[in-house]
Amino acid sequence: MYRPEIKVLDCTIRDGGLMNNWYFSDEFVTAVYRALSAAGVDYMEMGYMSSESAFSRDENGPWKFCRDEDIRRVVGDEPSEMKLSAMVDIGRIEYENIPPKSESLLSMIRVACYIHQMDAAIAIAEHCIDKGYETTIQLMAVSKAMERDIDEALDDVSKSRLPVLYVVDSFGAMYCEQVERLAKKYIAALPGKTIGFHGHNNQQLAFANTIEAIIHGCNYVDGTMYGIGRGTGNCPLELLISFLKNPKFDPRPIYNAVQKQMIPLREKIEWGFHVPYLITGMLNEHPRSAMKFMDASVRGEFVDFYNQMADATTLE
Amino acid sequence: MYRPEIKVLDCTIRDGGLMNNWYFSDEFVTAVYRALSAAGVDYMEMGYMSSESAFSRDENGPWKFCRDEDIRRVVGDEPSEMKLSAMVDIGRIEYENIPPKSESLLSMIRVACYIHQMDAAIAIAEHCIDKGYETTIQLMAVSKAMERDIDEALDDVSKSRLPVLYVVDSFGAMYCEQVERLAKKYIAALPGKTIGFHGHNNQQLAFANTIEAIIHGCNYVDGTMYGIGRGTGNCPLELLISFLKNPKFDPRPIYNAVQKQMIPLREKIEWGFHVPYLITGMLNEHPRSAMKFMDASVRGEFVDFYNQMADATTLE
Repeated sequence: MYRPEIKVLDCTIRDGGLMNNWYFSDEFVTAVYRALSAAGVDYMEMGYMSSESAFSRDENGPWKFCRDEDIRRVVGDEPSEMKLSAMVDIGRIEYENIPPKSESLLSMIRVACYIHQMDAAIAIAEHCIDKGYETTIQLMAVSKAMERDIDEALDDVSKSRLPVLYVVDSFGAMYCEQVERLAKKYIAALPGKTIGFHGHNNQQLAFANTIEAIIHGCNYVDGTMYGIGRGTGNCPLELLISFLKNPKFDPRPIYNAVQKQMIPLREKIEWGFHVPYLITGMLNEHPRSAMKFMDASVRGEFVDFYNQMADATTLE
Repeated sequence: MYRPEIKVLDCTIRDGGLMNNWYFSDEFVTAVYRALSAAGVDYMEMGYMSSESAFSRDENGPWKFCRDEDIRRVVGDEPSEMKLSAMVDIGRIEYENIPPKSESLLSMIRVACYIHQMDAAIAIAEHCIDKGYETTIQLMAVSKAMERDIDEALDDVSKSRLPVLYVVDSFGAMYCEQVERLAKKYIAALPGKTIGFHGHNNQQLAFANTIEAIIHGCNYVDGTMYGIGRGTGNCPLELLISFLKNPKFDPRPIYNAVQKQMIPLREKIEWGFHVPYLITGMLNEHPRSAMKFMDASVRGEFVDFYNQMADATTLE
């Protein structure tokens, strides 16, 4: 699929950091940065930008905060066309802690929000625009939102200066038909704006759903190397870059970084497909119960987990 | 997706046996059989039916041959609505080695063939029909076939008594659009016949492509527990059964068998997603080169493998 408008964003450090509290070594982050840059990836998300009043430095590595001095240390002085981004969560960042673009190595701030936070998300996104950044909003957990509320959120976005809104499959619950429907809905509601897609791999559909989103007009797509991310992880970047036919992309640096960085890391922290994540995805539930199941010192029975989750879902 | 016509076939033993020369213990095969039966799976493929003149008993376990006494030993006497199948390869079975249905526990013989073998495949399939079996043909490697040859093969099938033809993505090379196109093409060419789909997971698309095939009218779909199969493996049955909403299916016995049988087996034999399989899939090549790479005592560089494969493909 060669469509010059398509932009690929890697969130290996940001989403992968959910698995190790963002304690990646500088060498690791530098290796990821260099591989992404050499592969022609458009954006690298360095982590979350958070206020130090919201999270402790004692419990979180540097990529929970994305201070400029940390970024500068790992990206070095080599020129790169790749842009850097950071994600902010509503209520975890004070406006005054976001530096103006002119004082930052970041080019883009992405705002993650739930549907009831859309007003706050638009406000912080427009604040970031005013500070000189490219900006997107990731509307999370839309698979649990009521249609009336999605319509209202899209209406709010349409009246805002936000340029990019993502369809986000937070729970890995969507099949191709849901992706198609939401992509078409967002595009129809937001003429002149760009739509993105961010998937999760609970049902081994993150890559397939990303293709589906691209087919139906989404132009910002996210991946992570070797699919690293919370629980079952994200769309594997090596698949996405191999699929896209834009000659600016070269998959080889990604293959190499998967072999040299990600496979050794996978020996230390576990992510990827497991039946409990499939179960929460299929039931359209947050993966937290599956993560708790997987983290138990003695893992229980998959069938008991399914029964508990299916009962809980029925009773909701 | 609740469509009563949809039939699910498990080929854990047949396709998984490519990884261990069909040396599964009787206890393992019995556990798989019981789980599939309890889950409401329509067909269990017990293995290949081969002539002993084609393969040695010294180098292959019982499921390369599928003799009735072996099947009888593992399925026991419990009644089950699940039907049993075996696959035959052209040239690896003599007609006289196929017992009549009345003397066999098998209900279905599936014939695997390449496109130049279609005449031979139809002949053996009709022979099996005459012996009392349900029959399908798996037309392999169709992603490498020329359109003119596919048309001719479909024309031959249309004039035969074959009831079921499969779209087979042998190399894990297809994206959703290829699956849609081939499913529609087969259906249009074969009125009154049933179309199936068998995927491979090189690009983590086996499940997604199976959904796509179902959406576009394929009614026979294959899976294996935990995706076991050659190289990167097949469509994971636990995903497929969780997706299908036909109330006759119960995913819990599958979850349990994945936990009790497949995860321990995965410690002994390796299958699943790896970059070399992605590379052969993306390049629409047989996975044999990737398997050789993976089996080497010292694995080489992914990038070197990609360069070799990409060059070989270019030169073909």
